[in-house]
Amino acid sequence: MVNLEEIHSPSDIKELNKKEQIALCEQLRQTMIDTVSANGGHLASNLGVVELTVALHSVFTTPHDTIVWDVGHQCYAHKLLTDRYARFSTLRQKDGVSGFPKPSESEHDSFITGHSSTSISAANGIAKAKALTDDNGYTIAVIGDGALTGGLAYEGLSNAGRSDDRLIVILNDNKMSISQNVGFVSRYLTHLRSKVRYVRFKQHLTYALTRIPLIGKPINRLVHNWKKKMKRSLFAHTSFFENMGFHYMGPVDGHDLRDLTQALEAAKSVDRPVVLHVATVKGKGYALAEKNPDTYHGISHFDSREGAVKTSSPSFSSCFGDAICRLAAEDERIVAITAAMIKGTCLEAFAAQYPTRFFDTGIAEEHAVTFASGMGVGGLLPVFAVYSSFLQRSYDQLINDTSIMDNHIVLAIDRAGVVPDDGETHQGIYDVAMLRAIPHTTIYAPSTFKELERHLRQALYDTGGIAAVRYPKGGEHPLLADYEPSYQPYTLREGKNKKLLLVTYGRTYGEMLAARRQLEQNGQYAAVLKLNCIHPVDDEVVAIMKSYDQVLFFEEVSRVGGVGEALGSCLMQEGYAGRYAVKAIDTVLGACTTEQGLQAVGLDAAGIVRFVREQTTAKEISHDGV
Amino acid sequence: MVNLEEIHSPSDIKELNKKEQIALCEQLRQTMIDTVSANGGHLASNLGVVELTVALHSVFTTPHDTIVWDVGHQCYAHKLLTDRYARFSTLRQKDGVSGFPKPSESEHDSFITGHSSTSISAANGIAKAKALTDDNGYTIAVIGDGALTGGLAYEGLSNAGRSDDRLIVILNDNKMSISQNVGFVSRYLTHLRSKVRYVRFKQHLTYALTRIPLIGKPINRLVHNWKKKMKRSLFAHTSFFENMGFHYMGPVDGHDLRDLTQALEAAKSVDRPVVLHVATVKGKGYALAEKNPDTYHGISHFDSREGAVKTSSPSFSSCFGDAICRLAAEDERIVAITAAMIKGTCLEAFAAQYPTRFFDTGIAEEHAVTFASGMGVGGLLPVFAVYSSFLQRSYDQLINDTSIMDNHIVLAIDRAGVVPDDGETHQGIYDVAMLRAIPHTTIYAPSTFKELERHLRQALYDTGGIAAVRYPKGGEHPLLADYEPSYQPYTLREGKNKKLLLVTYGRTYGEMLAARRQLEQNGQYAAVLKLNCIHPVDDEVVAIMKSYDQVLFFEEVSRVGGVGEALGSCLMQEGYAGRYAVKAIDTVLGACTTEQGLQAVGLDAAGIVRFVREQTTAKEISHDGV
Repeated sequence: MVNLEEIHSPSDIKELNKKEQIALCEQLRQTMIDTVSANGGHLASNLGVVELTVALHSVFTTPHDTIVWDVGHQCYAHKLLTDRYARFSTLRQKDGVSGFPKPSESEHDSFITGHSSTSISAANGIAKAKALTDDNGYTIAVIGDGALTGGLAYEGLSNAGRSDDRLIVILNDNKMSISQNVGFVSRYLTHLRSKVRYVRFKQHLTYALTRIPLIGKPINRLVHNWKKKMKRSLFAHTSFFENMGFHYMGPVDGHDLRDLTQALEAAKSVDRPVVLHVATVKGKGYALAEKNPDTYHGISHFDSREGAVKTSSPSFSSCFGDAICRLAAEDERIVAITAAMIKGTCLEAFAAQYPTRFFDTGIAEEHAVTFASGMGVGGLLPVFAVYSSFLQRSYDQLINDTSIMDNHIVLAIDRAGVVPDDGETHQGIYDVAMLRAIPHTTIYAPSTFKELERHLRQALYDTGGIAAVRYPKGGEHPLLADYEPSYQPYTLREGKNKKLLLVTYGRTYGEMLAARRQLEQNGQYAAVLKLNCIHPVDDEVVAIMKSYDQVLFFEEVSRVGGVGEALGSCLMQEGYAGRYAVKAIDTVLGACTTEQGLQAVGLDAAGIVRFVREQTTAKEISHDGV
Repeated sequence: MVNLEEIHSPSDIKELNKKEQIALCEQLRQTMIDTVSANGGHLASNLGVVELTVALHSVFTTPHDTIVWDVGHQCYAHKLLTDRYARFSTLRQKDGVSGFPKPSESEHDSFITGHSSTSISAANGIAKAKALTDDNGYTIAVIGDGALTGGLAYEGLSNAGRSDDRLIVILNDNKMSISQNVGFVSRYLTHLRSKVRYVRFKQHLTYALTRIPLIGKPINRLVHNWKKKMKRSLFAHTSFFENMGFHYMGPVDGHDLRDLTQALEAAKSVDRPVVLHVATVKGKGYALAEKNPDTYHGISHFDSREGAVKTSSPSFSSCFGDAICRLAAEDERIVAITAAMIKGTCLEAFAAQYPTRFFDTGIAEEHAVTFASGMGVGGLLPVFAVYSSFLQRSYDQLINDTSIMDNHIVLAIDRAGVVPDDGETHQGIYDVAMLRAIPHTTIYAPSTFKELERHLRQALYDTGGIAAVRYPKGGEHPLLADYEPSYQPYTLREGKNKKLLLVTYGRTYGEMLAARRQLEQNGQYAAVLKLNCIHPVDDEVVAIMKSYDQVLFFEEVSRVGGVGEALGSCLMQEGYAGRYAVKAIDTVLGACTTEQGLQAVGLDAAGIVRFVREQTTAKEISHDGV
């Protein structure tokens, strides 16, 4: 009998018969459920593509052929089949198997994904390179219907369809775009899906007919011609993909290995780019996930028999969700926008309470900002809630469609700083550098839930232009339970003297207070300055810094372009005679817990203490014994 | 008779009869030709929408109704009709009438554009705000077929189509997407355009029939029903816009005022978003421009009778075009990509010589980068030539799809720094801040043509990750005629002593040498350090800076996030005891010539001299009399 453990490469899969492959699918599902229930991860999306992945690896041969997984949250079966079974229990853990495709992890992973809608463009490039270098391999992009709502996917289709390269786009249609009600894709695919029965019938009929001796083939031809006519009328609406330059095939049942394999073989034989439409079920094979695919999309560890239990511990995200509802009750100009992250940004209550004032744009961060800016022009108060790393997609819309007109929009930037589990593609460490360079922008960095609401109010009413409030994934630091938000742009806890000042903002403030406590226990005293508004920085902040002998700045974002760099340059230009150093992030951080991440970049309490000691002793400043 | 001079607002247009409106169109055309031939500007696109603009202002009333002009390079008629005729001779001049819509200039301009494909999203937002505030005004987005190739337009359509707001999208189809052969849009619209005769016939028939007494209306109804059936079969392919949620109308002859007016009135009466497809001719009414619309798209001043004369003075752009051809001849891995800027980036020769290695993605900067990164994965050497301000659109694709995998692509960043004439939306002053924060990125800043080629070679062969070469619009500084490019990351011209060091890069180096000459004439001596690689900065650069008493840094980009800020912070952290100041750009710079722009931001020779004097005297350092 087949054993997943013994599968090391696509060639092993090719040796299995269909029955064994079906058994393999079962083992893949069980391994995923076991691992995700232990480690957390993406479950529903991965369960949905098990048969598709087995079929792909039985028809194609990576790395000669290349598969690009859009977003990448459906690559677990692919990883298990390409020699990562033995390490799979380390999924999403530090130095473990990444939850997303990662070329440095395996030659079978061609392209990092993690952000949506990129696969067709990347596959277009890879297929073009193969064509220009006389490599006869195929390139396959696997993209969900949700990802098809992103403009980049449209650009990718439109460009890739112009080539005659060996490119196959698998449209993994699991009705994500339906649940998000995102316009075109949902409407269009609903139409196409209504034909699924027809195609299965057709395939089975063809299969049966070709097996009848002598008369089978002629009859098949007749039937084929009739079907061609049928198809022409039925698939009039396929003109979208056809106009893109693709040959459209499907829809095919994404859980029927035989149909899938046949369809993939057929796609191989077409001499131009193909869209193969595959209908799958999110969560397939795990009843709980099939019933609630959203709950089992991205999930923390859970009991695989009992199912996921809703945890309701408050987080910065949930506090934002509560605060925006309270604010909206007072002011009907407030509208909220998300780009397919309604759960993650905790806008469900807002959407339920203010349905006409809530907008889910689908995976369309560019549109979300320009749309928000337009609503601002019309006199509304738009709040775009978005993950830090996804906001990167809106850079030009922030500059060109918002900032240079000085339009007022509010950004609620979730997942700012180190983000657990998802790795490189989801770290929220570039937003500060990105936003600082944009004119007419103000950035608030709350350290507590109360402060988040306070800053949100400031962003809405006391700030013009782009007003951003950035906060991390997770909860408050326990040391900040009693912290009362300040109306000032900074909060200073003076020390015993003017020797050492530690400066930070946001989540790091809690770690810094813990570090300060440890330092004090060792007789080293420091004042602590917390920035509430991190850009522009208040003049008084610079004045305070200048009054200390030494200033150390800590921030949980990219060093380049960060606030620490700006303040360093400012102090230099103001002729500050003391010493200054910055601890920030210099690396591309992989998957880890928040704690591990902060430890790795030296921004937990222990790291802060270590940096303070290095900086205060290395340059021969003795501990002050006051 | 009608006189353009006397038209001050949309209500004046409404008082004219059709014949007068047609005469008005003639005057608008003549004014445009006269002004653009004197000042330069966008001609062909503006000539194409004269009738459309008159029709819009005769049917709608801005600012109660709102028009958003996509890209904005077709807004001249709109400006002339909304009280800017008297000032129109100042078009694209400093403090003059902007070549793009500008809310601060007129209440009739609702939204800044300049970058493509934004209008539907902005109009969606404005229309939504009207709906939520019980404002019954209409919102109209005017978007070209070329702009429809951008993913943001797709996101905008998909989202706007879900509303039931008073939104009309005018698809101004002038076959731009055809000339660029950009896939879907070109293919799809070609199909739709084939129906133009039919619609004109239908409208004229209807118009005539309704004017026959008694029997006219019943006959019209009959004909109408027949036409409905006709239309259903003819417009099966309109399903793209219909699936987007829009009611599709058209195509209508965009130069027939009567048809246009009728169509716009009809669009008003539809109770959901409408796409009105209007077929126009670029350059309409000026034979030279009709024949060569590309030449008369964006153009410098010319003799309106003789027509535009091709100037062939070398520029950084043309030198890039030459260099990339030379490099491609030596290495067949080199491929070039542009996003609808083949002329502007001077890739025409490359496209002609290496057609299979040249890719014009249409207005799709996001795709261009991800596609390039994919080609890099496949072993090619992709070079994406792009204007600095348009590269802003690729920010996330640079980080997520390129940098974190450490893929190697080359960016040829044209129009870096101050850009003449086009104003706020086209300034190339954010790319340095943007790119510096992206890991695995190297930025070269050539000061001369020779150096450009040298850096391009370095970017291709001596650099990993993202390798950018940024250069300005225009030519070499005359003082640099003899400058020989260095193989070092910097070039130092030492002074008579170690008192003052001026540091800069790129184009500013020429101005700095001129400034140095002026300073010397007044007995003030300075060393000059030119950075060749501006990120990462070589350690030796910091060491050199530290050996001077005072360092002044000049750069033609946004101060925030710039190299000057980084070096300031670096010097601070290294304990530099001298003085340091940065001169960079702090403002949103409007239209001007390059010279005026450099003057305005203080980065011409005179500005550099002034800054040196301020900095060396203000802090009581006397001129050194050596």
